[in-house]
Amino acid sequence: MGSVTTSQIDPPGTVHDSSFLRVCRGEQPAHTPVWFMRQAGRALPEYRALRVGRTMLDTCMTPDLVTEITLQPVRRLGVDAAIFFSDIVVPLKAVGIDLEIQPGIGPVVAKPMASEADLSALRPLEPETDLPYIAESVKQLVAELDVPLIGFAGAPFTLASYLVEGGPSKTHAKTKALMYGEPAVWARLLDQLADITLSFLRTQITAGASAIQLFDSWVGALSADDYRRYVMPASSKVFAGLTDLGVPRIHFGVGTGELLPLLAEAGADVVGVDWRVPLDEAASRLPGRTLQGNLDPAVLLAPPAVVDERTRLVLDQARVLPGHIFNLGHGVLPETDPDTLKRVVDLVHASTS
Amino acid sequence: MGSVTTSQIDPPGTVHDSSFLRVCRGEQPAHTPVWFMRQAGRALPEYRALRVGRTMLDTCMTPDLVTEITLQPVRRLGVDAAIFFSDIVVPLKAVGIDLEIQPGIGPVVAKPMASEADLSALRPLEPETDLPYIAESVKQLVAELDVPLIGFAGAPFTLASYLVEGGPSKTHAKTKALMYGEPAVWARLLDQLADITLSFLRTQITAGASAIQLFDSWVGALSADDYRRYVMPASSKVFAGLTDLGVPRIHFGVGTGELLPLLAEAGADVVGVDWRVPLDEAASRLPGRTLQGNLDPAVLLAPPAVVDERTRLVLDQARVLPGHIFNLGHGVLPETDPDTLKRVVDLVHASTS
Repeated sequence: MGSVTTSQIDPPGTVHDSSFLRVCRGEQPAHTPVWFMRQAGRALPEYRALRVGRTMLDTCMTPDLVTEITLQPVRRLGVDAAIFFSDIVVPLKAVGIDLEIQPGIGPVVAKPMASEADLSALRPLEPETDLPYIAESVKQLVAELDVPLIGFAGAPFTLASYLVEGGPSKTHAKTKALMYGEPAVWARLLDQLADITLSFLRTQITAGASAIQLFDSWVGALSADDYRRYVMPASSKVFAGLTDLGVPRIHFGVGTGELLPLLAEAGADVVGVDWRVPLDEAASRLPGRTLQGNLDPAVLLAPPAVVDERTRLVLDQARVLPGHIFNLGHGVLPETDPDTLKRVVDLVHASTS
Repeated sequence: MGSVTTSQIDPPGTVHDSSFLRVCRGEQPAHTPVWFMRQAGRALPEYRALRVGRTMLDTCMTPDLVTEITLQPVRRLGVDAAIFFSDIVVPLKAVGIDLEIQPGIGPVVAKPMASEADLSALRPLEPETDLPYIAESVKQLVAELDVPLIGFAGAPFTLASYLVEGGPSKTHAKTKALMYGEPAVWARLLDQLADITLSFLRTQITAGASAIQLFDSWVGALSADDYRRYVMPASSKVFAGLTDLGVPRIHFGVGTGELLPLLAEAGADVVGVDWRVPLDEAASRLPGRTLQGNLDPAVLLAPPAVVDERTRLVLDQARVLPGHIFNLGHGVLPETDPDTLKRVVDLVHASTS
């Protein structure tokens, strides 16, 4: 557990010495590093311009576009890390699941999984043939970036929810019904998804990503006991399968106040916290742990004085932490003014250097 | 705080001695009382049959229908309390807010509130002229019921969210932007909503309701600090304004693990807990408090053996409580088999009598 001390794949000097990776390794940074979940995306006009006439999946499969979109917030905002632009369902599409990403809705799966027979649709991921564009995008990116690239993947529970519900869900009722009702089928489903996720992340790391974040976006729908029993084995398999690559592993899910110790126990080095749990309180649940977070993304819609006050509050609450990566408590909202994001980056840097 | 010892409006003997009211008063019940949020509604075929060709708002404004729908689950399931059938936005509609409830979506407000000028749309509620059908429905109901009737209202934050967002929201971003950006306008809005809610609940109690539940469905979107600063004054005003009527006051919101002590501090006698926090853990956050909950509604979609096991687990975890009202951790899901609800009622009664 804890910080990462060695890396098998050494990033270039400036990246290796970046504040982001220094904090991940438990070293003193030049300033508190900051990046934003969904920094690459809908809040940036240059992103929206690029996306005109292109589907999300086509965009994710085109290295020049992935590179440009991932770079956009780094250029504009001066963030300390890039997050690989992709979608949670990209590896599912790549193994042949019939799905699309519908604007304003999200992933829609043509034939939702309902029983053991459907598991056969989930074959293992063969990165070189199934998604050659991922390694290509990462290589192109690290050649251009002077900050670390964070690899991106959805966690097994969140992927399972999309597969079983057939799309986004408020209740995750079908997913839980399968989990409670057919625990053996559920365990196999999550194990297969863990293998796919692991392969997807290893591909990004071996191509040059300096860290990864596993997004278990919807796992906050579960109690801690259910998380431990039904989800942790699969998420642990993903983290354990990355250990030999020696890169920092971040773990995040929204509404996971009750799960924070387990998100770390699953094998993460850094745990992301949403805005519901102040970082000093999160520190008491995760002693000695480097944490990431946790400004409420809705604060960025308030006037500048409020944004500043709230940003400083997060930094104050983070003082008790051994290491802090500033981020939001969830993704950037589409209606956010990019200038506000820049304002936060500058304030975090100025307040902590 | 704590249990309610006197009632100004004494319900009939069987109701007064019911297990539900005994637990609310801190007395020993014959068995653990059980009711379900949304027990009156979409899961019951007899409800769906009644609703054919009728809008939700028309239904809520027709005493014969409200009475029949509220009674349906009492007859079929043998629950220990009835919950007044209504909708959170009924009092808003009654003061003239232009809104409708769209099937499959929820409340849609024609002109969402955005600034101070819009506050004038929120005039005080005059129950006798604005919603005479509420007192009429309650009176009709208590004449027919042999279990207590729980009055129903949405809390100021949740009402404000519908008014500001214009409908259901995943992020409550506009609501929070107003809250953070214009705290004085926000405070006035919540105070006006508190007055409306208070009047709505007093109407139900004086007509015969034996208890009330304040539903702050979406307040789990806030941190504890924000809850205390921006919401608690209004919710406290509602609870304080009911004290003279001497009925038990239940307070519930989904995803409120971080807020549980504050939900009690706001003035509730009983706090509802969702399934994310086990009741024994909730007891440590709310020592000496009677709690309501907290079976995950998705469990009811699993096979009977799982339903039984999980129901018993909730009862086990509740043993440390001074008083327990069995319920779900959120509303009954529409796809729930009514026989499963009946199974849970019978198991709770058999296990605790």
